Amino acid sequence: MQTQDKTFNWPVLIQQFEAVVGKDGVVRRREELLVYECDGLTSYRQRPAVVVLPRSTEQVSHVVQICIAHQVPFIARGAGTGLSGGALPIENSVLIVTALMRQILDLDLENQRVVVQPGVINSWVTQAVSGAGFYYAPDPSSQIVCSIGGNVAENSGGVHCLKYGVTTNHVLALKLVLPTGEVVDVGGAVPEMPGYDLTGLFVGSEGTLGIATEITLKILKSPEAVHVLLADFTQMEAAGNSVADIIGSGIIPGGMEIMDNLSINAVEDVVATGCYPRDAEAILLVELDGLEAEVAASSRQVETICRQHGARNIAIATDPEQRLKLWKGRKAAFAAAGKLSPDYYVQDGVIPRTQLSSILKEIAALSDRFGYQIANVFHAGDGNLHPLILFDNRIPGALEQVEELGGEILKLCVRAGGSISGEHGIGADKRCYMPEMFTETDLETMQWVRQVFNPQGLANPGKMFPTPRTCGEGAGVALDRQYPTIERL
Amino acid sequence: MQTQDKTFNWPVLIQQFEAVVGKDGVVRRREELLVYECDGLTSYRQRPAVVVLPRSTEQVSHVVQICIAHQVPFIARGAGTGLSGGALPIENSVLIVTALMRQILDLDLENQRVVVQPGVINSWVTQAVSGAGFYYAPDPSSQIVCSIGGNVAENSGGVHCLKYGVTTNHVLALKLVLPTGEVVDVGGAVPEMPGYDLTGLFVGSEGTLGIATEITLKILKSPEAVHVLLADFTQMEAAGNSVADIIGSGIIPGGMEIMDNLSINAVEDVVATGCYPRDAEAILLVELDGLEAEVAASSRQVETICRQHGARNIAIATDPEQRLKLWKGRKAAFAAAGKLSPDYYVQDGVIPRTQLSSILKEIAALSDRFGYQIANVFHAGDGNLHPLILFDNRIPGALEQVEELGGEILKLCVRAGGSISGEHGIGADKRCYMPEMFTETDLETMQWVRQVFNPQGLANPGKMFPTPRTCGEGAGVALDRQYPTIERL
Repeated sequence: MQTQDKTFNWPVLIQQFEAVVGKDGVVRRREELLVYECDGLTSYRQRPAVVVLPRSTEQVSHVVQICIAHQVPFIARGAGTGLSGGALPIENSVLIVTALMRQILDLDLENQRVVVQPGVINSWVTQAVSGAGFYYAPDPSSQIVCSIGGNVAENSGGVHCLKYGVTTNHVLALKLVLPTGEVVDVGGAVPEMPGYDLTGLFVGSEGTLGIATEITLKILKSPEAVHVLLADFTQMEAAGNSVADIIGSGIIPGGMEIMDNLSINAVEDVVATGCYPRDAEAILLVELDGLEAEVAASSRQVETICRQHGARNIAIATDPEQRLKLWKGRKAAFAAAGKLSPDYYVQDGVIPRTQLSSILKEIAALSDRFGYQIANVFHAGDGNLHPLILFDNRIPGALEQVEELGGEILKLCVRAGGSISGEHGIGADKRCYMPEMFTETDLETMQWVRQVFNPQGLANPGKMFPTPRTCGEGAGVALDRQYPTIERL
Repeated sequence: MQTQDKTFNWPVLIQQFEAVVGKDGVVRRREELLVYECDGLTSYRQRPAVVVLPRSTEQVSHVVQICIAHQVPFIARGAGTGLSGGALPIENSVLIVTALMRQILDLDLENQRVVVQPGVINSWVTQAVSGAGFYYAPDPSSQIVCSIGGNVAENSGGVHCLKYGVTTNHVLALKLVLPTGEVVDVGGAVPEMPGYDLTGLFVGSEGTLGIATEITLKILKSPEAVHVLLADFTQMEAAGNSVADIIGSGIIPGGMEIMDNLSINAVEDVVATGCYPRDAEAILLVELDGLEAEVAASSRQVETICRQHGARNIAIATDPEQRLKLWKGRKAAFAAAGKLSPDYYVQDGVIPRTQLSSILKEIAALSDRFGYQIANVFHAGDGNLHPLILFDNRIPGALEQVEELGGEILKLCVRAGGSISGEHGIGADKRCYMPEMFTETDLETMQWVRQVFNPQGLANPGKMFPTPRTCGEGAGVALDRQYPTIERL
């Protein structure tokens, strides 16, 4: 920490930043920097040396060029709601925050696309187009606060990604400031673009390949009808099998979510929905959207399947108010978990949908073995689990044990043929688990790409990939320059 | 041509290839090489020095390593049905043909995925899973002969890509032999994979980043019901406006195709469907798939929209035999065009769907100006045009004029905010049009990627990107080694 001002010439850097973005675009005071110490993953914390708030592509490019000239690492940050530490600063770094880039630049309803700056909040996109009968599909839980730029960096998902795909399926084009400071355009106004798919490469690259400064999103026609079904089960297995059978029948719901008994009770304690039975082992929420006739037919079919698997009660909501009531508990689940315990750790892993029941049993066994309660709230349709591990961070050693438990869950997912991240990204949190999924050659191939875009390693160093420094000797490829390690809180 | 045996030590190369793939896996005789002179784009022609037919990933890797050791360029080829010359050999090159890699390696119906070798024919995938109620969505016109490996290289489309997306949306994972000979795995069994999306990067890279030797495809549940509607119009504009209104209503048909009067008559001359009225200016084919109730409802809605726009007759087919009858003419359209004229050139461009009518008028004007008839058969739903320019290649200078006319059509597409390729790729044919869509910096960014994967430029040199040698001084970036130019026939 004391080496900071010796390593880089901060007064000069700040002067140069101010010349680009103005005095009010540079945050330097210690107490103001506090809010930028971490993102949604609160177990790591590090203050950046300075925060810069550009307003345009040109300003982002200039700021990056200044960083390059001084060889100082820079990290892009949207709203800071990420759950894997992708926007976590490192010591002596510049945080480039897109909070002032909040303009919707173009609405082209006829061609169903919208161009936004990266700081635009996810839910604003739908707000801007809903009057004309459109919406933007990817809907992370944090959608009323998270930014589109962050969604692009982390390839965010959400409840509706079962049917409509994650962020990458909704990005048509990007204007990028590369880690060299150059500005390039990738993708185009139509989905069919020749050449390499650099848009797809960039989405989910967590700020290691550059900073998106203009984002062209696809918007969808709002469905004619939406039904939400809530079924409750006395057996988790029955809920899991219902999910498999619904998909097996050819129906693709807009969303399909399961909550377990612990989550149900947490939610009823906090928001008292009155519709989630406290004695149910699982509730299943199924949202169906489309044409009226289609939704009515699949709604009946889903009901039949759930009853066949022993669902006790089935509530069906067809108007917006009723639907909101059924969703209310699910939407409050993460917040409610905060009432169960002083702290919790959200894991994010993917398994093939067909193995839901068996993996949940194994998670329960891990919960017993480690002695921590785990609440399960998850995107059942695409096998994207979100186990919430409950703990008390004031107890020494608890965080380490919880992280070990979280790691065991990820290994379970990989063994089942799944993935270590469904929608939260790798960031700082999961980089050491990348070798569970990829061989050294596979990871090296990704590093080739990183090196060619980010040759000096200044753009978000240390994220996504394991390095010997962060993950122990022999881990990953030592391509990173030796930047200070991210300090554990 | 005479330099061939001086440049490379072919006897040694062939001996080494034979040691890997056996004598019957190497084609060297001049008359046997004839069939490999071109792909579906017949206006370019060049014999490779040798054709190698490997049977496994290991063999492909060995063959590539031999090429590297001798610094001889290599080009991967599937079934050779490509329409942009992506698999075109160059002088003194090795053609690596996947025709003996035709095994379906794994069928995992429960998780809706199939693992195939690259030589597997597109339609075999659906055949292998249709009994269990599944199908593989991308369906190029050549689907009964084209290979999955070629589909991956060119990111092929088809009639059903309007609703389900092109090849890239259906590839979960790839085993690749990189241009360095290394074997890597990209993607995974579930769609949500962390790290850079190298699967997406590779699909559509036309053999310039390596050769796919195992391909994991997503298969879809066969729809409960399928309806096909055939509407005929006395005005092309009315057909185009119907398309816009159908999409605007929120319906996403499985496919939506338009044929113009010239194509209708060609088809009726050849296959005599009896259902395409010869006096119609346009026919519109709409395929709707999904649950019975949904399809019935949208079918009624499509009918209403077409009638509002003045459709004269509307035929609706609900059983497989009737559907086949309505599709028959469309399926035969390209073959029938062969009856209209000794030769034709198929163009492939994309425009925003909303500009269909105006662009078709401009194409008609170009047809008049150049004095060549143009038949239009196209994927109207996604604005993917396929103008067929009719000409006689025996007339000196005709091909050049037709190519110029084709180029003018591409420029029209770009000016309208579209693309120079919807599904046929860039290959050798369209590389000089890349600067119409991309700035020098954008193209250079793609070249970075190519260079990092294909540092010696041995994998499919000269394809996709403009070079001064192929496209004239000042075009593109001269990263290619100076391989012989592809000879014009």
